[in-house]
Amino acid sequence: MQIDLNCDLGEAFGNYSFGGDAQIIPHITSANIACGFHAGDPDVMNETIKHAKEHGIGIGAHPGLPDIQGFGRRKMDLSPQEVYDIVVYQLGALNGFCRIHDVKLNHVKPHGALYQMGARDAAIAKAIAQAVYDFDSSLIYVGLSNTLLISEAKAVGLTTASEVFADRRYEDDGQLVSRKESDAVITDTEQAIEQVVMMVKSQKVVSKNNKKIDIEADTICVHGDGAHAVEFVSQIKERLTKEGISISKLGG
Amino acid sequence: MQIDLNCDLGEAFGNYSFGGDAQIIPHITSANIACGFHAGDPDVMNETIKHAKEHGIGIGAHPGLPDIQGFGRRKMDLSPQEVYDIVVYQLGALNGFCRIHDVKLNHVKPHGALYQMGARDAAIAKAIAQAVYDFDSSLIYVGLSNTLLISEAKAVGLTTASEVFADRRYEDDGQLVSRKESDAVITDTEQAIEQVVMMVKSQKVVSKNNKKIDIEADTICVHGDGAHAVEFVSQIKERLTKEGISISKLGG
Amino acid sequence: MQIDLNCDLGEAFGNYSFGGDAQIIPHITSANIACGFHAGDPDVMNETIKHAKEHGIGIGAHPGLPDIQGFGRRKMDLSPQEVYDIVVYQLGALNGFCRIHDVKLNHVKPHGALYQMGARDAAIAKAIAQAVYDFDSSLIYVGLSNTLLISEAKAVGLTTASEVFADRRYEDDGQLVSRKESDAVITDTEQAIEQVVMMVKSQKVVSKNNKKIDIEADTICVHGDGAHAVEFVSQIKERLTKEGISISKLGG
Amino acid sequence: MQIDLNCDLGEAFGNYSFGGDAQIIPHITSANIACGFHAGDPDVMNETIKHAKEHGIGIGAHPGLPDIQGFGRRKMDLSPQEVYDIVVYQLGALNGFCRIHDVKLNHVKPHGALYQMGARDAAIAKAIAQAVYDFDSSLIYVGLSNTLLISEAKAVGLTTASEVFADRRYEDDGQLVSRKESDAVITDTEQAIEQVVMMVKSQKVVSKNNKKIDIEADTICVHGDGAHAVEFVSQIKERLTKEGISISKLGG
Repeated sequence: MQIDLNCDLGEAFGNYSFGGDAQIIPHITSANIACGFHAGDPDVMNETIKHAKEHGIGIGAHPGLPDIQGFGRRKMDLSPQEVYDIVVYQLGALNGFCRIHDVKLNHVKPHGALYQMGARDAAIAKAIAQAVYDFDSSLIYVGLSNTLLISEAKAVGLTTASEVFADRRYEDDGQLVSRKESDAVITDTEQAIEQVVMMVKSQKVVSKNNKKIDIEADTICVHGDGAHAVEFVSQIKERLTKEGISISKLGG
Repeated sequence: MQIDLNCDLGEAFGNYSFGGDAQIIPHITSANIACGFHAGDPDVMNETIKHAKEHGIGIGAHPGLPDIQGFGRRKMDLSPQEVYDIVVYQLGALNGFCRIHDVKLNHVKPHGALYQMGARDAAIAKAIAQAVYDFDSSLIYVGLSNTLLISEAKAVGLTTASEVFADRRYEDDGQLVSRKESDAVITDTEQAIEQVVMMVKSQKVVSKNNKKIDIEADTICVHGDGAHAVEFVSQIKERLTKEGISISKLGG
Repeated sequence: MQIDLNCDLGEAFGNYSFGGDAQIIPHITSANIACGFHAGDPDVMNETIKHAKEHGIGIGAHPGLPDIQGFGRRKMDLSPQEVYDIVVYQLGALNGFCRIHDVKLNHVKPHGALYQMGARDAAIAKAIAQAVYDFDSSLIYVGLSNTLLISEAKAVGLTTASEVFADRRYEDDGQLVSRKESDAVITDTEQAIEQVVMMVKSQKVVSKNNKKIDIEADTICVHGDGAHAVEFVSQIKERLTKEGISISKLGG
Repeated sequence: MQIDLNCDLGEAFGNYSFGGDAQIIPHITSANIACGFHAGDPDVMNETIKHAKEHGIGIGAHPGLPDIQGFGRRKMDLSPQEVYDIVVYQLGALNGFCRIHDVKLNHVKPHGALYQMGARDAAIAKAIAQAVYDFDSSLIYVGLSNTLLISEAKAVGLTTASEVFADRRYEDDGQLVSRKESDAVITDTEQAIEQVVMMVKSQKVVSKNNKKIDIEADTICVHGDGAHAVEFVSQIKERLTKEGISISKLGG
């Protein structure tokens, strides 16, 4: 039994620092690296891949919408063709830095609004997945568990990794409770860790209405910023290890 | 005896059209394709590579400075590291579209101010060349004949192609006469064609002071926009063919 | 009885030309000038205001979404506060050039996706209108007739001008027939001119279902690009004049 | 005897925070607010002017080069006309937010590479100054003491304020010692404060070669970021007050 811990990295931009990449890298197994559209820039991408390689973690592309000011979090009405093209562009750009550092690009995870658009819109989900497949059909595709991101990626022939959240509550149908609702986030660390362990061990989660539902769990999303980020990840790792679950990068 | 005819393509941007790509493509052997920093965008790059592939011409990256408003023609004070990183980024991005169309990236030619900066500044020239080499050491590097672009690229181990201009006059030291001077451009078509033929056949050119000087000539820069662009290229091709010079893509 | 003819101008960007500003300016009474977010740049804005002033036409701001590649036509999920702030920014920027040319900013018309978002979403419509009012409460606000753009602008206290289209068909409720439908556009010039005359003279229009419905018509949107743009505008002007309708700028 | 303390503010961008605006605002008398070209965005500009107004400090525009990634610190080869136009644009944009908050724009200080280009290049200095004058001839123009920024601004008819630095050493000719030299910065707080006091009281400074030279000192540049920023400013203020020098905003 094994699980991956993924984290968004390389989100600094020019003169602007962001997150705590150096602190979190030793604790994760996969890095989703911004590609310059919603965050990151060529210098940051180069540095981030260098650091990720040094720590032997899985290197992934984190393509987003072309909106640095909005950090890729504002939905944009792009056509499927436009989505396809921005994903190919960003995969290529990040892969450029993989080539100069002689490392393999291992996975892809759409970012922010692109991730959300793909989770709910089949044409967008298909466009993202097709771009990934056409670029490199051996890439592992990370998407929100139980959504179109995963089903459309499987349909085009990609190997997928379903992403789950330690600290988010789930609806009865396996979707995340919207952040607009008061009970969207699990604030109790112990409870979050219990949820993770159950998801990994039994591929089940208890919904906000106390139903036990199916959920694929191949990778856990963790955060690199925030005061307690590293502490929380350490606790998760300790508990998972105690449960006999090995923590290793996607496809590893 | 052979020569390549290269042209800048894919310089449209979003709603903005540019140049006459469709008209010039059948007449050239190598395309320098904008990578989204000074012109072009992911949709344009995809379309341009598709068309270039259909016509069997050599596909090249045309990386530029990050300045679409200035079309990459305004010098920017970037460090060698920044130059290195923007070149890797753009090579990767364009190569993404080569991958989805299953064609090989054949050459690289820096654009505009980046080309000029590299021609005169060894640190910049070295940064560009090193980026190209690290990305893919088999790429052919196109630079202005008799400049640091070529010598630094050779120094890092790249195969180079020296670029000459049909319609530009040369100084005694092999540099282009600055466009600020009144006699920088050869306006007479016949004279321009004679210059090309001499450069290709004898690797010599007559400078503005009537000295016969050495010049390497591997590829001729032609333009896709302007009223007489296609006509001029057709005339050059006709004459070169008559002289027994074959016109074929770089490395072909 | 009078009517204004408005046209989008100043949509060139850097090295990219766009539209036929010089041709259409002599034929219109109001210019909607791009402010650098979806099109235009500081140099273009300066030139465009200079030309508009020379022809004595009404000068208006044409604020759009921050998306030059998409020409401001791709909806973005901006908050009302973000919409408010980008409108203030763009009004200020354009007004900077009005100040150096000593002309008054006369009107504002939202562009593209921002115009469409405001037509259908009250919070967005209110944010745009409030920004205009707070910046300069004497500005005339141009919006699509029969929509929230007009009603929300009136609610904040602005003078409005309802915009109609010569060549677009209308639904029974006064909305434009969507461009996705086959009968959205009136291609027959004579019919388009008849529609304009009726709208101006009787403030009525015949819907696609042949119902005569109410429509406020203060300004007609004309286009500066396309082969027949100037000819079409000339024909409209000739006919309107024959009908005794004076053509003059908003508030003029 | 009086002096102004100015500080760069509003340099956050989208999701990226920057500096310690809230901490430093209570200690300064003038704010140079980024205008969205090298830093800042419409939302940040709105907030920053609101805060500056609440504290009654002088509000200034801080126009920069169009290069957020480079934070406006990388020189760009813009023509004087392009410089003129980007300054008008940014003054207008910032002034938009002054209008909605009903405050007066009080001064202008060019940022980063634009400041340095203007200090050394008369055509650039004149373009900046002319743009400021044409936009609003009553604005106070802040530039580096003893440079073309000040002399060209005076030549176009602007009221100027010469800027000095507490913690930078000066050449015999009144220029700043380049940051590339080891003794460019005064690291001893007491020595920096002595330099400030002498500059304000006697309009003299001791150069790195121990010559006493003339220097106009109307405003002192202080920083809002860094661990000891607020403490350093507090010490300067305490000492200046003790010396009988009043600290008040430009033109105040």
